Amino acid sequence: MAVTPDVVSPPGLTTRMSADARRAQLIEVGWELLQSRPIHELPLDDVASAAGISRTLLFHYFPTKADFYFAVVSTMGKRLLHPPRLPEGAGAPDRIRSLVDGFVRLVERNRLSYTALVRGAGGGDQRIVELIADTRDALVPRWLDAADCPDTSPLTRLIVRGWLVGMEETVLAWDPRSVSREALVDHLTASFLAELALAEGRT
Amino acid sequence: MAVTPDVVSPPGLTTRMSADARRAQLIEVGWELLQSRPIHELPLDDVASAAGISRTLLFHYFPTKADFYFAVVSTMGKRLLHPPRLPEGAGAPDRIRSLVDGFVRLVERNRLSYTALVRGAGGGDQRIVELIADTRDALVPRWLDAADCPDTSPLTRLIVRGWLVGMEETVLAWDPRSVSREALVDHLTASFLAELALAEGRT
Repeated sequence: MAVTPDVVSPPGLTTRMSADARRAQLIEVGWELLQSRPIHELPLDDVASAAGISRTLLFHYFPTKADFYFAVVSTMGKRLLHPPRLPEGAGAPDRIRSLVDGFVRLVERNRLSYTALVRGAGGGDQRIVELIADTRDALVPRWLDAADCPDTSPLTRLIVRGWLVGMEETVLAWDPRSVSREALVDHLTASFLAELALAEGRT
Repeated sequence: MAVTPDVVSPPGLTTRMSADARRAQLIEVGWELLQSRPIHELPLDDVASAAGISRTLLFHYFPTKADFYFAVVSTMGKRLLHPPRLPEGAGAPDRIRSLVDGFVRLVERNRLSYTALVRGAGGGDQRIVELIADTRDALVPRWLDAADCPDTSPLTRLIVRGWLVGMEETVLAWDPRSVSREALVDHLTASFLAELALAEGRT
């Protein structure tokens, strides 16, 4: 990683990082802190302090709290879209199970921040609402590809998008004390395939 | 309805309404105005003006904009929970179709405000987020009753809740130019029954 001086070098900054690396670091720090409290309860001072930089430098990268939150959510959205490694030579059911399993793992690791994000829908920030909608749109063809169903009808695309939102809600509301992880993943996999077959008129 | 004087009687108020009737009227006016623009673009002056009362009187009933919005959303949530008249002697599939149809109709009549509500999740107001979650929780037993499945497992309840959220998203994203109303209602009815059978291990 190239190490270049920061554009602004405030007093007390001991580590020099490239602007991109610093931005990425701040986003990671933000995501970690958002595991334990919602964005409206996260002072940017805490982010600066956890990253070992001044508030002034933080504001150099992210002029407003909304800008910072948008950057964090945007990075996590891209991560969600990053295709997981699918089983070699696997058929559609295994590929779908793998996508379901990956999503359950994502929620297990980031439950609080993920819940705050989709339930609070970005604290009323329209950019966040649109980002969530765009991420959901982009997920539809990935799931259809995994199911060997890339070209399909408007009804199927509509239904798959709704199903993905329903799955998100299900996994967020899931309590492992009353439903086992395996039962959840089994059901969601079977449910996606059944929903697709129904929409495609294959039942 | 008993007509009692308002606690505050500002100049220009020609009609005397009971406090409850006035409150209900303001909520209806708010809901109507929210058909055409989101809450953050709705000045309370417009609400007062549409209701033919002063801003002072409006603030007497609803001290803050958040209070007003909460009252509007709460009333609409109760309306959503009000059971529609189900077909006489109908079986589970007809009852479920009737619930699906009722929800599609609700969205058709209130698309803009409903979308703003669930997508913006109340502009970051925690009370609204909780109200939406409570309304969804309360819908689950109603749908399970309609499907002749009142007592069921935690998995089924979890899945039905997720399905309802997915249906909501589907109907909100639905474009009647690409998917007919009939195809939408048919699919959602079959989907609910298939999902329930799957969760109950009846497939």
